[in-house]
Amino acid sequence: ALLKLLENEHHADIAEVLEDLNLEEATYIIKLLDSDLTSEILMEMDEDDREKILQNLSEKEIAKELDELDTDDAADMIAELPEDRQQKVISNIEDKEHKADIQELLKYDENSAGGLMAKELVKVYDNWNVLKCVREMRAQAEFVTRVHSIYVVNENNQLEGRLSLKDLLTTSTKTPISEVYIPKVDYVNVHDSAEDVARVMQKYDLEAIPVVDDNMHLLGRITIDDIVDVIKEEADKDYQMAAGISQDIEADDTLWQHSRARLPWLFLGLFGGVGAAAIMGGFEEMINKHAVLFFFTPLIGAMAGNVGVQASAIIVQSIANSDLKGSIANRLFKEFSLAMVNGLALSIILFSFTWFWKKEILTSLAISISLFVVIIVAGIIGTFIPLFLHKQKIDPAIATGPFITTSNDIFGILIYFSIAKMLLGI
Amino acid sequence: ALLKLLENEHHADIAEVLEDLNLEEATYIIKLLDSDLTSEILMEMDEDDREKILQNLSEKEIAKELDELDTDDAADMIAELPEDRQQKVISNIEDKEHKADIQELLKYDENSAGGLMAKELVKVYDNWNVLKCVREMRAQAEFVTRVHSIYVVNENNQLEGRLSLKDLLTTSTKTPISEVYIPKVDYVNVHDSAEDVARVMQKYDLEAIPVVDDNMHLLGRITIDDIVDVIKEEADKDYQMAAGISQDIEADDTLWQHSRARLPWLFLGLFGGVGAAAIMGGFEEMINKHAVLFFFTPLIGAMAGNVGVQASAIIVQSIANSDLKGSIANRLFKEFSLAMVNGLALSIILFSFTWFWKKEILTSLAISISLFVVIIVAGIIGTFIPLFLHKQKIDPAIATGPFITTSNDIFGILIYFSIAKMLLGI
Ligand SMILES: [Mg+2]
Ligand SMILES: [Mg+2]
Ligand SMILES: [Mg+2]
Ligand SMILES: [Mg+2]
Ligand SMILES: [Mg+2]
Ligand SMILES: [Mg+2]
Ligand SMILES: [Mg+2]
Ligand SMILES: [Mg+2]
Ligand SMILES: [Mg+2]
Ligand SMILES: [Mg+2]
Ligand SMILES: [Mg+2]
Ligand SMILES: [Mg+2]
Ligand SMILES: [Mg+2]
Repeated sequence: ALLKLLENEHHADIAEVLEDLNLEEATYIIKLLDSDLTSEILMEMDEDDREKILQNLSEKEIAKELDELDTDDAADMIAELPEDRQQKVISNIEDKEHKADIQELLKYDENSAGGLMAKELVKVYDNWNVLKCVREMRAQAEFVTRVHSIYVVNENNQLEGRLSLKDLLTTSTKTPISEVYIPKVDYVNVHDSAEDVARVMQKYDLEAIPVVDDNMHLLGRITIDDIVDVIKEEADKDYQMAAGISQDIEADDTLWQHSRARLPWLFLGLFGGVGAAAIMGGFEEMINKHAVLFFFTPLIGAMAGNVGVQASAIIVQSIANSDLKGSIANRLFKEFSLAMVNGLALSIILFSFTWFWKKEILTSLAISISLFVVIIVAGIIGTFIPLFLHKQKIDPAIATGPFITTSNDIFGILIYFSIAKMLLGI
Repeated sequence: ALLKLLENEHHADIAEVLEDLNLEEATYIIKLLDSDLTSEILMEMDEDDREKILQNLSEKEIAKELDELDTDDAADMIAELPEDRQQKVISNIEDKEHKADIQELLKYDENSAGGLMAKELVKVYDNWNVLKCVREMRAQAEFVTRVHSIYVVNENNQLEGRLSLKDLLTTSTKTPISEVYIPKVDYVNVHDSAEDVARVMQKYDLEAIPVVDDNMHLLGRITIDDIVDVIKEEADKDYQMAAGISQDIEADDTLWQHSRARLPWLFLGLFGGVGAAAIMGGFEEMINKHAVLFFFTPLIGAMAGNVGVQASAIIVQSIANSDLKGSIANRLFKEFSLAMVNGLALSIILFSFTWFWKKEILTSLAISISLFVVIIVAGIIGTFIPLFLHKQKIDPAIATGPFITTSNDIFGILIYFSIAKMLLGI
């Protein structure tokens, strides 16, 4: 009864149901249902859950699932298995061609176009005519779930152009393909990064893009559904990174996974706080005459952190969207000007407050001038660090969040007490 | 010569070139080129830049651009115009049907399925046969750039199912449509939110989805390229929000736009810092015997902030991906346990450090126990606030970043001094 019910559901929905069951139940259902359905269900499940179920399946059973999957998904599933099982599973795949395709895909980096592409595509030769093309296409299309474009290649399998299904439907059957195909076709290189592929497909509103090697040989095809996943995962990852969470974590992961993802960043924050405390210890002699200075250290730390995070977030985002124009110097100057404007506004308010509270003009001045300088320095650090990391080919996304707030805490408090000491002449 | 060069480029690339030109040059080129090209270029440009160019075009010229655009883009472009121009532009659109379609689309909220859909789609009636269907389809397809699916409706225009182009190509021409169409078709309601549509299309890997009203009447179609933009924009917005940047800002926007987007959050931070200072003022009498307590306020503030941001980011993200399971109480308990684990580890380290530094066991205890409690409270606040906002139908994304760090600064320092006062018995 449960099975009847499940069979009418979309595999993505069944995957969600299985994730809520315990392992034995989920494995039982996977073994029971047909592998043309279960293979899709497995692919839709969370990686952790899929891993556990695959541990309970034999190499033969896994190979059967792989036979039903598109080559891109099959390669991804194999790549998740422990090394020693991978070869055994591959040798159990029945379809020779499918096996060879999967083995080819396993060679590519998972974050490259090669790691995203599938071998399933519809291609025709430029010396065919429309009739032959329609016939061949019907045969090929059986193995391709969705036909976006038909790719036209020459006798060396080099990409020449594309054909739309629409054109095929509206052209006389004797026309040679060479006369109807569109020679302008977007493509990506097999070694391009996944993020670059996503950018190209978003920019040109593509539903699929062919993948070629350095000599324009047609190797595979990437479809937009996988790119949507890339975009979403990348965004989730950057968001977590900015919040001080490493690794890909979901609310429902275990306590230990969460702790492992968060604790390193908290250590960093602790380290920064201890540094700030040590600096303040160095200015201890000021505490008797100017205790009020010590009341504003959380404010200085918080503002340095906030300004730094704002500046770095804009830079990280612009780099990710690759719409950053102009030189580093220009960028720093702009952030400097912005910090001047914002810093001035905030310092005036802080001065009014501190003066109103303590009626000490000199301490009030020291505190608000420090805030002004700290905001400018924080803005520049927040701009510079991600730009610098990017130049060094390090993902600038790690520079936001705890990284910036911690370093700005230390710098901020050092600057604050140095300026106060100078102005108050102690 | 420039024109020849441009004509071979993709409109998305030309849009980028125009954004770098000055307004007169860009307007000149838009007026010069054919509106079938320029309409697409305009749609690809940044909203600010498009707005400026449209100000320099007459209502008639704008209407000509609209005639070339798909209805969804045309409606979006009109919606950006000032109220008084909108009607004039609409009345200048030549194609009656196109005009009516656009006017219908203007009724829907821009963040709903209605605001995303286009009227362009290919539909057939369930009482036709394949031959009639192919003929009609050819006629309709002329106006539809990409045919993803053919939608099947009954005589009342109610959605019954879909047909794939592939099926049409492989079925005998006399077969009635009612025998070949797939009755299972995903669809969204015209009032569904854009984020819900994105979720459905991502989950089921769709390239297009039909939009219906409450009575299943087929109203339009949403394509994945527009959904990719929705996902990207939503992610960028949430990222900026978490960094304390309101409004949609890019690195190249003006200083004033940046200042306006950032300053409010900095005011909030200033307010929090002043609050913290006021609290510390209330504990001023402790400064003589326990100055070292005051050295650790930036650490307490920073840790409270970091923990709060981590907790809230996970909740905000889970809500956005709607994969949050379990009750609020469960969620709070989990965060509480996690904070216990992380807090214990961090407090032990801090205790070691402070003891080693000052050799005062009681102050060291006070500081590290406070940190422990602050981490737990910060985790709970960070979890509770976004959940609470979400229940109140407020976007929880505003709760991350400055909002959480500021409130946690205040709470953290209040807790810190209260505990210290108790433990040190002052
Ligand atoms: Mg997981
Ligand atoms: Mg792969
Ligand atoms: Mg696009
Ligand atoms: Mg577009
Ligand atoms: Mg795929
Ligand atoms: Mg990234
Ligand atoms: Mg802070
Ligand atoms: Mg719209
Ligand atoms: Mg998907
Ligand atoms: Mg998928
Ligand atoms: Mg569109
Ligand atoms: Mg959101
Ligand atoms: Mg802009």
